[in-house]
Amino acid sequence: MSVTTPRGFRAAGVAAGLKSGDARDVALVVNDGPDAAAAGVFTTNRVKAAPVLWSEQVVRGGVVRAVVLNSGGANACTGPAGFQDTHATAEHTAATLTASGLEIGAGEVAICSTGLIGERLPMAKLLSGVDAAGQALSPEGGDAAAEAIMTTDTRPKTTVVTGDGWTVGGMAKGAGMLAPGMATMLCVLTTDAVAGRETLDVALRAATRVTFDRVDSDGCMSTNDTVLLLASGTAGVEPSAAELTAAVTAACHDLAQQLLADAEGATKEVAIEVVGAADEDDAVEVGRSVARNNLVKTALFGNDPNWGRILAAVGTTAAAFDPAAVDVAVNGIWVCRSGAAAEDRSKVDLTGRGVTIRIDLHAGVAAATIWTNDLSHAYVHENSAYST
Amino acid sequence: MSVTTPRGFRAAGVAAGLKSGDARDVALVVNDGPDAAAAGVFTTNRVKAAPVLWSEQVVRGGVVRAVVLNSGGANACTGPAGFQDTHATAEHTAATLTASGLEIGAGEVAICSTGLIGERLPMAKLLSGVDAAGQALSPEGGDAAAEAIMTTDTRPKTTVVTGDGWTVGGMAKGAGMLAPGMATMLCVLTTDAVAGRETLDVALRAATRVTFDRVDSDGCMSTNDTVLLLASGTAGVEPSAAELTAAVTAACHDLAQQLLADAEGATKEVAIEVVGAADEDDAVEVGRSVARNNLVKTALFGNDPNWGRILAAVGTTAAAFDPAAVDVAVNGIWVCRSGAAAEDRSKVDLTGRGVTIRIDLHAGVAAATIWTNDLSHAYVHENSAYST
Repeated sequence: MSVTTPRGFRAAGVAAGLKSGDARDVALVVNDGPDAAAAGVFTTNRVKAAPVLWSEQVVRGGVVRAVVLNSGGANACTGPAGFQDTHATAEHTAATLTASGLEIGAGEVAICSTGLIGERLPMAKLLSGVDAAGQALSPEGGDAAAEAIMTTDTRPKTTVVTGDGWTVGGMAKGAGMLAPGMATMLCVLTTDAVAGRETLDVALRAATRVTFDRVDSDGCMSTNDTVLLLASGTAGVEPSAAELTAAVTAACHDLAQQLLADAEGATKEVAIEVVGAADEDDAVEVGRSVARNNLVKTALFGNDPNWGRILAAVGTTAAAFDPAAVDVAVNGIWVCRSGAAAEDRSKVDLTGRGVTIRIDLHAGVAAATIWTNDLSHAYVHENSAYST
Repeated sequence: MSVTTPRGFRAAGVAAGLKSGDARDVALVVNDGPDAAAAGVFTTNRVKAAPVLWSEQVVRGGVVRAVVLNSGGANACTGPAGFQDTHATAEHTAATLTASGLEIGAGEVAICSTGLIGERLPMAKLLSGVDAAGQALSPEGGDAAAEAIMTTDTRPKTTVVTGDGWTVGGMAKGAGMLAPGMATMLCVLTTDAVAGRETLDVALRAATRVTFDRVDSDGCMSTNDTVLLLASGTAGVEPSAAELTAAVTAACHDLAQQLLADAEGATKEVAIEVVGAADEDDAVEVGRSVARNNLVKTALFGNDPNWGRILAAVGTTAAAFDPAAVDVAVNGIWVCRSGAAAEDRSKVDLTGRGVTIRIDLHAGVAAATIWTNDLSHAYVHENSAYST
């Protein structure tokens, strides 16, 4: 049930005609309280969509009582008019919910959009969708909401992590443009725990740093990435900061792996484990460099354990390492030792979807894992044949 | 005739069995003087192939009398044994040429290799190839040499630029792994002008900075990139530094465009012209970011003028610009003005091979052009089905 598993939340997902067919495309998540604390993490792309600019302000206010999410249009690169559209959506949502008995201001409504960049949203349809979603709000609405935010996703992504008397729930979308500083994605996490906004902020940043931020499917960063964490306090239990962080991290990890497994056109999920690094930043830099290398990614698509391409990618980084000391294993076979050929590459079995590349820099004790996908014909097809 | 058009040079290209079939795979270029001044630019990848480590030393010595180039194997990531192989090749070449009447030391023989990373070269075949090439040396051998260095290239790349009583000739190979800090490539340039090594070094660095360094076909940097410039002085004419730089730049530009046009699997040659930048570094950073964006590249393959993806790529840079001020034109149609939709994107004609993306940052007067290719099914096929 995703975002509605924690108590104090209702949600809905409806079809408003933003996407072709009868697909759900507008989601609404409402926090009925008693608390309405929230935190958010947004794309670091300097070209930010209107809903990102808006929601950053809302989160800075510290109170989020509702989130409207739409697929079928990103409302990015739409200028001042696009920002007005987002503002109008928040005003309309606040008025609709207030009419139904909640007291909500527009500045407490976060907005998320996803879809094609550069086109205005069909506002009449969107606002009708908000009305319909308001009517459909339900404590069982989490799954419908998760479905409504899908774009090229082939399946909805939801998660539930249970604490001691409290729960974290979540939903996410994202299948392409999955990249650094957060996979291109929208994600709403909810909890019925009691937690102040600072605690939520620390937990969310700690969680995204080691999960969404380390998924790099295609090296492309979106204009719309948004991860929100809302706390209702309904459970009346206040977990420690460490407990909350652990639960939020587990929820983000689960959703991140679902994004990876549903990445556009991918045939492999690839974990790049960098160990023996001088520090964590070095490990992340090396992992990301390998994750973004099109020659490594095409080799994996071709079931080719081409460790030379991996080493060439490592060599483009500024990380501390001696090229003559690097070891590389692919699915457990150490095909490269001390920067040269070692075990027989024909021993490597790449027929499954899961691939683990382990790179030992022999420069320290730090480690990090970056997750990526291969580069396939289907990726090219999906991203060349359709405008997204 | 490429490298043998300038007087004072002989070359050969022979089949030594390093590549399958009867294809030429060993090239030899000899500078008969009277001068033997030289300059070189090498990959900035920290994982450098043995021939790169060797040739860097040779060029530091300032005298290059011969260059041996082989396709069919990169001799990269081959450890100390691989370096010994390169050293032995230089020793053998020097001895062979000395026996034929030239006085050449091993330290005056540069070595270039290209092909699969991580495997030792078949030395018996290679050294026999050097012997055969030494026998075949000819003032008309430039074309055979250019053919012998091809890997996945579909055609040899040669150039001739004529000065006032002197000439620059060149050959290059490279079709994939074309990336920053030099497209993955081997290139030998020759001139019969009189020029000292400092003059050659300045000319070569100025030329590669604005040509090979700005070709970024697939964002992947090789372990073997090498560009050499040899001067024989046979013409007895000493051009000014500016004249020499202009001629070397013209030769590099010509070869770089040939590399771009023959890039693995590409269906488009794309010029990304960044104008209105605060400084040249900003312009290069923005151009490179767009050139490396797989979503932009797949859109171009699909003839889709998806300016939103272009803006999203620009937004990942640290360059000075206001997202609300950026203009983007695709093949002359300004589809984006002030960060939002402008002219009708259906007016953009992307049916030809040549594409020009013009990005005006409105942040200054600096400009730079980065050249790249689209990302096609054929790129994925070529790089997944074959180990290179």
